[in-house]
Amino acid sequence: MDVISVIRTKRDKGALSDAQIDWVIDAYTRGEVADEQMSSLAMAILLNGMTRPEIARWTAAMIASGDRMDFSSSLSRPTADKHSTGGVGDKITLPLAPLVAACGAAVPQLSGRGLGHTGGTLDKLESIPGWRALLSNEEMLDVLNGTGAVICAAGDGLAPADKKLYALRDVTGTVEAIPLIASSIMSKKIAEGTDSLVLDVKVGSGAFMKNIEDARELASTMVELGTDSGVRTVALLTDMSTPLGLTAGNALEVRESVEVLAGGGPSDVVELTLALAREMLDAAGLKDADPAKALADGSAMDVWRRMIAAQGGDPDATLPTARETHVVTAPSSGVLTRLDAYDIGVAAWRLGAGRARKEDPVQAAAGVELHAKPGDSVVAGAPLLTLHTDTPERFEYALESVAGSYDIGAAGTQFERTPIVRDRIA
Amino acid sequence: MDVISVIRTKRDKGALSDAQIDWVIDAYTRGEVADEQMSSLAMAILLNGMTRPEIARWTAAMIASGDRMDFSSSLSRPTADKHSTGGVGDKITLPLAPLVAACGAAVPQLSGRGLGHTGGTLDKLESIPGWRALLSNEEMLDVLNGTGAVICAAGDGLAPADKKLYALRDVTGTVEAIPLIASSIMSKKIAEGTDSLVLDVKVGSGAFMKNIEDARELASTMVELGTDSGVRTVALLTDMSTPLGLTAGNALEVRESVEVLAGGGPSDVVELTLALAREMLDAAGLKDADPAKALADGSAMDVWRRMIAAQGGDPDATLPTARETHVVTAPSSGVLTRLDAYDIGVAAWRLGAGRARKEDPVQAAAGVELHAKPGDSVVAGAPLLTLHTDTPERFEYALESVAGSYDIGAAGTQFERTPIVRDRIA
Repeated sequence: MDVISVIRTKRDKGALSDAQIDWVIDAYTRGEVADEQMSSLAMAILLNGMTRPEIARWTAAMIASGDRMDFSSSLSRPTADKHSTGGVGDKITLPLAPLVAACGAAVPQLSGRGLGHTGGTLDKLESIPGWRALLSNEEMLDVLNGTGAVICAAGDGLAPADKKLYALRDVTGTVEAIPLIASSIMSKKIAEGTDSLVLDVKVGSGAFMKNIEDARELASTMVELGTDSGVRTVALLTDMSTPLGLTAGNALEVRESVEVLAGGGPSDVVELTLALAREMLDAAGLKDADPAKALADGSAMDVWRRMIAAQGGDPDATLPTARETHVVTAPSSGVLTRLDAYDIGVAAWRLGAGRARKEDPVQAAAGVELHAKPGDSVVAGAPLLTLHTDTPERFEYALESVAGSYDIGAAGTQFERTPIVRDRIA
Repeated sequence: MDVISVIRTKRDKGALSDAQIDWVIDAYTRGEVADEQMSSLAMAILLNGMTRPEIARWTAAMIASGDRMDFSSSLSRPTADKHSTGGVGDKITLPLAPLVAACGAAVPQLSGRGLGHTGGTLDKLESIPGWRALLSNEEMLDVLNGTGAVICAAGDGLAPADKKLYALRDVTGTVEAIPLIASSIMSKKIAEGTDSLVLDVKVGSGAFMKNIEDARELASTMVELGTDSGVRTVALLTDMSTPLGLTAGNALEVRESVEVLAGGGPSDVVELTLALAREMLDAAGLKDADPAKALADGSAMDVWRRMIAAQGGDPDATLPTARETHVVTAPSSGVLTRLDAYDIGVAAWRLGAGRARKEDPVQAAAGVELHAKPGDSVVAGAPLLTLHTDTPERFEYALESVAGSYDIGAAGTQFERTPIVRDRIA
């Protein structure tokens, strides 16, 4: 087997054989295939695609590069997991994991950090004083058994081929390949050993998938991969043309999540949290559970408080606030007809909420607060957005991204809101 | 400027701007753009193509990465240069350079070594005892002034960006991209400072370009690049479906070249040598020169002998012969209807005439000798090919490539020979 013949096969629009895939993933993990060879192959995959059998084998080879976890022997509850493809203001994991646990499932949520304009669940939770993302396998099981939910970093042993390939794709312009996105997500989720999985595939300017056809293709690819590996898998396609909720940033999003757990919070966040909870509970076989009740009666909040405390966090601590804020006011009165998720995500990132390189730190308190959502009326001179940062020299750069982020129509403009859940694929 | 945005532009089928091209070539040469980023870009260029203005700018940026030579001040004769895209048994440079010099042009022929199944001019000449490929700039000018022709290795200072990129393409499956082949060849030829250039673009199984349309596209791209840089450039598209002449290998091809210079040799080699000489002399403004006469009267042979001697070689020395030979006989009588250039090139390579890695040595005497060409009659049991090597354990592997290399039709089968020169692009 040699790597040039593997690259040529895909370059010339052929399908890779099982033997070629197994060999190239293993040889790349061992360092025998060089980065410059894998990136050339990744670009060929991005441009020429892969068949479903190729994607399945690629995923299996990445799983085989590392450990597989198995919760079934150590847990009495069925496990349910959720994965979002990433968006702006997407704090849903924070209220969702304790909510689904409060309804009877075990929720082992291995999460990641933000890169680029999309935020990361671990970065958000780290704004809670004392909270720890890194747990040993034993600690993880203890938290899960004790509270029903755990949100922590994935160990190094899961799909090491994916870790190496993901870092390479990030610097070689090969992130946006459906076969590589699908296999990256599903190799980690299948190796994690969950019984069921609900995928939140984002569509719109703030997501990797800008149009519904690509999102549907990604979703159906992942559902098929999960199902074929014995994981009950469902995907919702959800809107990411505008930020979720009224905040994008780390501590800002934790605050909003706690509001949802307290029975309040923005309606779109509540709606999506309940829709995903319903899917997770159905997939876990808990058809009779009532997530709306668990939000209303405080039982989800109880799990949240215990889960945060079990990982060293103080659920009653005051969250950090930014040293400086800057208010952007509406230039005219009327109806907000557009508030772009990507532009707001970039602004939050530039304010310090995200990182440009994996090793960069993030600011806990930085981000963007929205005072109106598309469809809302706005008044000239009234606050539209508030920018938060500890480093005010960043305002100017963030404001460049904000400048083109919104449109205001004349008063009385008809506005049809995009539904949060746009499609469901099972 | 950042490399990801450059890669994304080409990945998404856009045209690179002048500033993007200048930056990425310079940053790659300096090591700021990494190999894995350049290989991803190279694959995107291979699959999505480049416009003519992009290719011109890419070529100019590679020239700008190093030195430019200028012969015009130090030579009284017009310079003429030839480049072949590479084939099997392509020894044409050996008789051609002294022939054109004998007709009045100065021929500074910077040549390369073989890689893969195609041979290299320098490897061939090094089978002459004492002959040196590496000359200083002063030595090169001395040989050129003294004899009219010089064939030597290109210095390190010419287009270093191309050297680095060529080595990268070789290991990342990105060799066969017309924009990258054209800019690689033309950046070196333009930096060399020749007045005129004749391109021999090979077409067929033994060439990079397997079909005439691709060859025509490559040829017209290079002719345009040369012309726009003030180099009078002409291209011939020539057949490479079967080996040129009756030998493929280093010393074997030198022997055949000397036969041509002595007024004999295989007819296809003589025909192509004269056709290319005519083009070179016309491009150099020497319309009245008569290359057929210079072959017949021994003046080309005189230049050859002086040129070889000036670079330390002994033109009268016995050429090395292989320790072992193996004869392949015709399995049936009839007409040879196919003898595949690629298969014979691979066989010669496997016998030791070529190298798999740049640092490998080659065997001077290894190669394949043909006893018939397509269209010739063959008799069952008579020799068809003779394989030459110093390492007889290689016969078996070479014979695998020979096995499917030929077809023999019934006696009387009509056979139409492909003309050597298939098209001309000026």
